[in-house]
Amino acid sequence: MRYSIEGIEGIPEIEHADDLAALIVRALADPLADGDILVVTSKVVSKAEGRVVLADDREQAITDETVRVVATRQTADSVTRIVENRLGIIGAAAGVDASNAPDGTVLLLPVDPDASARALATGIRSLTGARVGVLVSDTLGRPWREGQTDIAIGAAGVHVFDDLRGGADATGKPLAVTMPCVADELAGAAELVKGKSSGVPVAIVRGLGRLVGDLDLPGARSIVRPSDRDLFRQGSEEAYEDGYRAGFDEAQAEGPLRSE
Amino acid sequence: MRYSIEGIEGIPEIEHADDLAALIVRALADPLADGDILVVTSKVVSKAEGRVVLADDREQAITDETVRVVATRQTADSVTRIVENRLGIIGAAAGVDASNAPDGTVLLLPVDPDASARALATGIRSLTGARVGVLVSDTLGRPWREGQTDIAIGAAGVHVFDDLRGGADATGKPLAVTMPCVADELAGAAELVKGKSSGVPVAIVRGLGRLVGDLDLPGARSIVRPSDRDLFRQGSEEAYEDGYRAGFDEAQAEGPLRSE
Repeated sequence: MRYSIEGIEGIPEIEHADDLAALIVRALADPLADGDILVVTSKVVSKAEGRVVLADDREQAITDETVRVVATRQTADSVTRIVENRLGIIGAAAGVDASNAPDGTVLLLPVDPDASARALATGIRSLTGARVGVLVSDTLGRPWREGQTDIAIGAAGVHVFDDLRGGADATGKPLAVTMPCVADELAGAAELVKGKSSGVPVAIVRGLGRLVGDLDLPGARSIVRPSDRDLFRQGSEEAYEDGYRAGFDEAQAEGPLRSE
Repeated sequence: MRYSIEGIEGIPEIEHADDLAALIVRALADPLADGDILVVTSKVVSKAEGRVVLADDREQAITDETVRVVATRQTADSVTRIVENRLGIIGAAAGVDASNAPDGTVLLLPVDPDASARALATGIRSLTGARVGVLVSDTLGRPWREGQTDIAIGAAGVHVFDDLRGGADATGKPLAVTMPCVADELAGAAELVKGKSSGVPVAIVRGLGRLVGDLDLPGARSIVRPSDRDLFRQGSEEAYEDGYRAGFDEAQAEGPLRSE
């Protein structure tokens, strides 16, 4: 099995209301084929959708996009807030991004990246006749490991999981818990050609047509773990402090009873 | 920019003391070139290194490999323990794996996957004359997101980070915090051709020679975040309970002083 990933050169700087599907198709050196997957950096989707606010409002923008503060780290010269955003995605700054934004502005994430991916896939399928899949990617840090990887925040026409539950390994034993998140792996694979500074916002993956399907497949929202199944829904320090207060209050409430 | 990833077919079932470098080179359809990167599933490294124990000892094996229990989840029919293993990697079951292991046995992770990667890279460079990089990969779940991705637990002759700190984005603004973990992205990209059930334990990445370097580059151990910089070093529930006990004890200790 073999596949290739190529960055698409020549996509112009994207502005509000641009037809991103048409601009991507126009920039292609080779025609798209059934089973190709396009990985599109969320920044250009945000720009096309006009998800830009003035940089003065950056802190307000982060607050607006934040559903829940998960953890905070204060260092000598900065504060990192790890928050859950509207999309259920947990990361720094709620996806509000000053880099690669026009001067004096910051970019917000697309309102509904799965819908953005679906619109792009629909547009590109219609323009080219090729049954392609689309992922919208963003860059995210992670607990326990340094550095960032690109992940899928939007998906259309692509299986986001290679669901092997119920399957068997090479020795015939059941693969009970294995469900590779192929959408995140593809987003990371595409980052390797898109880079952060290269101005190449779209990559095309050729040779993994087995992952491409109908446009009504579950989107990237299905990758987000529900918080009731999440063992790390709150930072360790924050959880400890909440517990400390609860324990302290409980002992104080009990105290007088004991001394009676 | 463009690269390709191909699964290497025809690598035989690996046994203890096999010369893995030689077996990989023998299975190649095309000769290796400078700048190629081999992504090797840790399972075959473990097998070649004899890191196999009897399945009866699975729980003991997990305990032996565990440095610290990070979080525990009890469901109706199972207990999931998220633990930090000897390598500093946090995941379920400390990397002890029953799938793809010979009947009646479980596999442990290599003792030192960076050393394993270095030995493989040295062997393959020597056999082929090609300046290749080697990653040793494993499959890991993650907080907040469903499913697993493959990550790099060993690396030799490959930059594990594409360190852009100090660089600039396409608009000239500093990319202050961006440090993509290319080793993890490559491991995930390779999973897409290796799969879990296909018996293809090695993939070859061609076209990313810019990431290949000397054998003394930092290994995958450098990806592990030191716990003093980690906001999620303990499960939320466990941290809350520790805090609760500390708060309760503190209030009780204070109690008598107040009533004096």
